[in-house]
Amino acid sequence: MTTTPLTHIVGSGLIGASIGIGLTAEGWHVTISDADPEAQRLARSIGAGEPPGAQEPHLVIVATPPGVTPEVVAEALATWPDAVVVDVASVKAPIAAAAAASGHGHRYVGSHPMAGREISGALAAQGDLFRARPWVICRGLASDDAVAMVRGVAEALQCDIVEMDADAHDRAVARVSHAPQAAASAVAAALGPLGADDVALAGQGLRDVTRIAASHPAMWSDIATLNRAALVETLDHIVAELDSVRRAEDIGAAMTALIERGRSEVARIPGKHGGAAREWEPVTVIVPDRPGHLVRLLTDAAAVGANVEDISIEHSPRQPVGLTTLWVLPQSANELIEALEEGGWVVAGS
Amino acid sequence: MTTTPLTHIVGSGLIGASIGIGLTAEGWHVTISDADPEAQRLARSIGAGEPPGAQEPHLVIVATPPGVTPEVVAEALATWPDAVVVDVASVKAPIAAAAAASGHGHRYVGSHPMAGREISGALAAQGDLFRARPWVICRGLASDDAVAMVRGVAEALQCDIVEMDADAHDRAVARVSHAPQAAASAVAAALGPLGADDVALAGQGLRDVTRIAASHPAMWSDIATLNRAALVETLDHIVAELDSVRRAEDIGAAMTALIERGRSEVARIPGKHGGAAREWEPVTVIVPDRPGHLVRLLTDAAAVGANVEDISIEHSPRQPVGLTTLWVLPQSANELIEALEEGGWVVAGS
Repeated sequence: MTTTPLTHIVGSGLIGASIGIGLTAEGWHVTISDADPEAQRLARSIGAGEPPGAQEPHLVIVATPPGVTPEVVAEALATWPDAVVVDVASVKAPIAAAAAASGHGHRYVGSHPMAGREISGALAAQGDLFRARPWVICRGLASDDAVAMVRGVAEALQCDIVEMDADAHDRAVARVSHAPQAAASAVAAALGPLGADDVALAGQGLRDVTRIAASHPAMWSDIATLNRAALVETLDHIVAELDSVRRAEDIGAAMTALIERGRSEVARIPGKHGGAAREWEPVTVIVPDRPGHLVRLLTDAAAVGANVEDISIEHSPRQPVGLTTLWVLPQSANELIEALEEGGWVVAGS
Repeated sequence: MTTTPLTHIVGSGLIGASIGIGLTAEGWHVTISDADPEAQRLARSIGAGEPPGAQEPHLVIVATPPGVTPEVVAEALATWPDAVVVDVASVKAPIAAAAAASGHGHRYVGSHPMAGREISGALAAQGDLFRARPWVICRGLASDDAVAMVRGVAEALQCDIVEMDADAHDRAVARVSHAPQAAASAVAAALGPLGADDVALAGQGLRDVTRIAASHPAMWSDIATLNRAALVETLDHIVAELDSVRRAEDIGAAMTALIERGRSEVARIPGKHGGAAREWEPVTVIVPDRPGHLVRLLTDAAAVGANVEDISIEHSPRQPVGLTTLWVLPQSANELIEALEEGGWVVAGS
């Protein structure tokens, strides 16, 4: 067994505490601190790390809000002159610039563990929060030893390590995360003029588009400020796409062209196991909206060997039934439909 | 038993054929025709209706592509001077105007059965396609008898009838359906400059926002053309929301304000049974990506009485596991997490 580095975490919110719990569970010696004494006490009480001792840490993980991260990283590099410092903020270039300006860039590694959902606070912390998700590492000026130490963290937490340049990371997250959040919120905000009966016409499409519009705004001020250039560039692109429709002479042709451009790009979003997005077939079933029926449906689907790749559930606004769509491989769809109908299910569409 | 009207359907695509199958199954006498002889033959062969006989229909359902619907409705009103004519296009005001201009507006009822997903062709037709979904009826100049006949269709197909004014319908669908489609396609199109590794950073948020960007563009040219004014007005609103961020002096504050506006509107999208959207708690579990595990997970969830309100599944791009999130009522979440962990599941976040 190799020796794990003595690790100190600065910041005990959801991310810092989850990393602390995860590394502690793997046998690492972890200490944790937070500027807020209450948050610090809570994190230590749930096993996210101990109070720092006399020994200097080998690795410092900065898990503060993104807005103060450049400053905290520079401070950490100065405070612990032999330690490797890594941060976990969702924007990377401004922090790399601050680290380089400190003259200690060889000891700084940028990183971005990509948790799937917007939740916050140490109470929500879980050692497995990042398991099986991408953990981006931006080496910048860092030494190979420094990068290896940070890869060790991501490996201990069983993440999917991706090395990228900081600028490329920031441009990518603007397009896959930051601007989509703004667009989803804008679509939701544009429901404003509608009355309740009008909004009730919403189908699964609107629910999908606006799901992340329910996100808490915490962090987003910092993220937008730190990633301003890439975010604005992406919003310019999105607005240009919308302009192509709203300013078109032939709005029908423009709408078709926009949908075609979107279709060819959305096909590039990876499906499972790194492959290109597969074309799954939807099989929609009417399910009574009571506990247990979903289990019975999936049991029946599993009995014919259909692997359910995705599920979506749409509740009917005025009736005690839900429409459940099982997404399966095209070659499984017909057999599944037959089996479900034989089993007494009402298949509403496929 | 009341007598059902002799019903003729013009247009045997997905919508026309599904209505034909559904009404025939309820014992209605249905005839069907299509300008395309092959489509007409197919629809009749799958039980969507018979060839028209000598008797004049009491009810004519126009289920042609939206672009030609105003004209086909006017023709139908002239061809069958005693029949009620209803159409099922997703834009209503221009068709109502054409019917009024024909001088037969008292025999025309506008309607819009809202199928949930973008699929097309009679081969995909199902009598239950619209069951438990909203069927909007716009009475306009129609007589009470004409409206009652059309309500009878929606009732026979077990739909959720909503009466609205045609202009209000068109403004509403622009905001809940047409502009969200454009926005989702625009977000997807803006992935264009990214390489494959960058796109692979996509999480569930981007997948949700862009799911409908995979829709087929058929119909959208007609829809955008017929609903131009309301669509452009909504796109103007969405662009103004995005402008508030990309042109802001303080982009952080602007992003926060946009997300807050979106949050308050998205909360108005109805959840189940017509109530306001409930606050469900996510419980995320790591599930091996093999058939059967999902059933076991849901069986374990049902065993503690947790009603799973929604499910989302995220496949890890490089690992043979998936992250499955069960959305449950807040009061069920803790008990569910405990039970799942006792049952050996790895709960990755909640």
